[in-house]
Amino acid sequence: MTIDHQERIRQLKSSLTKKNIDIALITDPSNVFYYTGFNSDPHERFMAFVVDNRTDDLKLFVPALDKEMADQDSVIKNSIPISDEQDPFVVLKDELGENIEKIGVETKHVSMFRHQKLQAAFPKASYKDIQEDINNQRLKKSREEINYLQEAVDIIEKVLEEGIKKVKIGMTEAELAAELEFLMKKFGASGPSFSTIVLAGEKSALPHGVPGDRAFKKGDFLLIDFGVITPKGYCSDITRTFVIGEASDKQKEIYNIVLESNEAGIEAVKAGVPLKNFDIAARNVINESGYGDYFHNRVGHGLGIEVHEEPSIHNKNEEIAEAGLFFTIEPGIYLPELGGVRIEDEVFINENGEREVLTSFPKELKVL
Amino acid sequence: MTIDHQERIRQLKSSLTKKNIDIALITDPSNVFYYTGFNSDPHERFMAFVVDNRTDDLKLFVPALDKEMADQDSVIKNSIPISDEQDPFVVLKDELGENIEKIGVETKHVSMFRHQKLQAAFPKASYKDIQEDINNQRLKKSREEINYLQEAVDIIEKVLEEGIKKVKIGMTEAELAAELEFLMKKFGASGPSFSTIVLAGEKSALPHGVPGDRAFKKGDFLLIDFGVITPKGYCSDITRTFVIGEASDKQKEIYNIVLESNEAGIEAVKAGVPLKNFDIAARNVINESGYGDYFHNRVGHGLGIEVHEEPSIHNKNEEIAEAGLFFTIEPGIYLPELGGVRIEDEVFINENGEREVLTSFPKELKVL
Repeated sequence: MTIDHQERIRQLKSSLTKKNIDIALITDPSNVFYYTGFNSDPHERFMAFVVDNRTDDLKLFVPALDKEMADQDSVIKNSIPISDEQDPFVVLKDELGENIEKIGVETKHVSMFRHQKLQAAFPKASYKDIQEDINNQRLKKSREEINYLQEAVDIIEKVLEEGIKKVKIGMTEAELAAELEFLMKKFGASGPSFSTIVLAGEKSALPHGVPGDRAFKKGDFLLIDFGVITPKGYCSDITRTFVIGEASDKQKEIYNIVLESNEAGIEAVKAGVPLKNFDIAARNVINESGYGDYFHNRVGHGLGIEVHEEPSIHNKNEEIAEAGLFFTIEPGIYLPELGGVRIEDEVFINENGEREVLTSFPKELKVL
Repeated sequence: MTIDHQERIRQLKSSLTKKNIDIALITDPSNVFYYTGFNSDPHERFMAFVVDNRTDDLKLFVPALDKEMADQDSVIKNSIPISDEQDPFVVLKDELGENIEKIGVETKHVSMFRHQKLQAAFPKASYKDIQEDINNQRLKKSREEINYLQEAVDIIEKVLEEGIKKVKIGMTEAELAAELEFLMKKFGASGPSFSTIVLAGEKSALPHGVPGDRAFKKGDFLLIDFGVITPKGYCSDITRTFVIGEASDKQKEIYNIVLESNEAGIEAVKAGVPLKNFDIAARNVINESGYGDYFHNRVGHGLGIEVHEEPSIHNKNEEIAEAGLFFTIEPGIYLPELGGVRIEDEVFINENGEREVLTSFPKELKVL
């Protein structure tokens, strides 16, 4: 099984037609990857996938250095190379003609600088945002994508299993983070999908904490939130919280409330109900235990070729859950001095509207 | 010694005054760091350093989650937090008033989406690019910055010294890259300043090669191009090329030409001459040896709080070298089947207009 890029492009063209858009100029690398299979960060250079909805032409513009790799990886053959000496907007105009009236762009991804260049190249054109149409497509994962996402989960769970064997009193957060990121590459990941979070003791309560010199002590909570991106371009994201040495009664209490909340959130997952239900099911457990003031975040977020995608699983999201959605469930309780507990799994709503949990790392409290 | 942020802001205000700009809205995180000392990636959230050149007010807008860290790290006290429920452009308008006529922005960093939001909030405003003014400031490194850059060099050279001890026949490029990135964190770096390049044998000739499953063999060139970013926010970037097992006469020949080219480039560095001179001095050595067709890139680039900054050291750059410039010198010869050699050092033009080389890792051909 492989990804059906042509079908993705066909769906995009259908939304372009509805909006009377002449051409789509797609420049966000994750969207270029989604439609063409070419996964590349051009940095400051110009890269664009152009769908001409008037002629059905498909064109992939790439930095000249990347042409060979683009032609190998992309479903769009014969990409158009742009050398460092060329002005990409002149190349665009030469290839597309200047008589374009409506251009679809990702407005959050096109800079004022490039917008000015486009206005000069295509003086008759107006612009329409197409990010939402793209998001609506990327939202629904196919079985092929779930297989790729499962690979990303399998790698990170193997890393976690091996990684926690290295934990010992006196080791620092930063040291463990470095070990974990080393294991990611060892087990076949391209790298972390976001900067690995390892937080111990009171630091585990910080929403934006960064692994540092804090050394592990007996009785610490140890929160590990991390993921990989695979060579195929898919992300994982999992959190487990451990206790070092010996767990206090208070720690056990907090942990088990979060575990119950995580399980309640997952059990609520199915197609046909509002997405807020999943958040509320998890949140109710924490509220009823009296710790509602210490759970600040939404319960989950989608992921796929990026580690944060649609949907957002928060308690006001009235959108109806559908087959194909894939997202995290990650409730937590964060107590300023004692520390924080978060347990995060990844859940898919399958073709039958039922939940499938891709993560399988054990969740009962583990003392390291 | 510490960084004099107030002097940096004073210089910025002077260029705003020359252009009649009312306020500067600085949103590129590296520029926010440069002027305020707060080093943070807000991802999709809104962060801006605003210099009001009418009133001399300085305001730092940050995501609410980051306020505590911003107030701790920034020279701008009492940052203005923006919660996820707020519209940042409404907050901006409330704080600045809507009667702004000329806004200075980094046009390559402000998206069309944000530009539209700004136009709605400040209907009378026009926009002027200020990136060049900022670049001209960042171009000149102070002695304090050189001390921080030296720390970044010291860490990466220690990583290289330890890392090459692990090289053995059969190890893959990806395995060595993982070891090197592990050592970076072990020796105190925040992480790599760019994705570590480890390329062996014929792959060392690829300009955009990625470390993969290629296993080291006897007689391979081994090219390592990498750097760190330190907790203080400064980058390093160094390349050394080794031979595994035993070097052929051809490999020795190529290596020594590149070494001579690297040294010629460095020796040409001084204030008062065109920047192109440094490229040409290095390039002449390679051209005269007959390998000119196999040296494609410019000889160097500036670096500092980002790994690519001004100046660009290429053979057409007529700008005159001045005290304060800091850049790489990195000639190479890339032969399609044999592989490539690159030797990269970091050079500063000091207060007296003389060169100081920050890198000190030995450059004679080393067989591993």
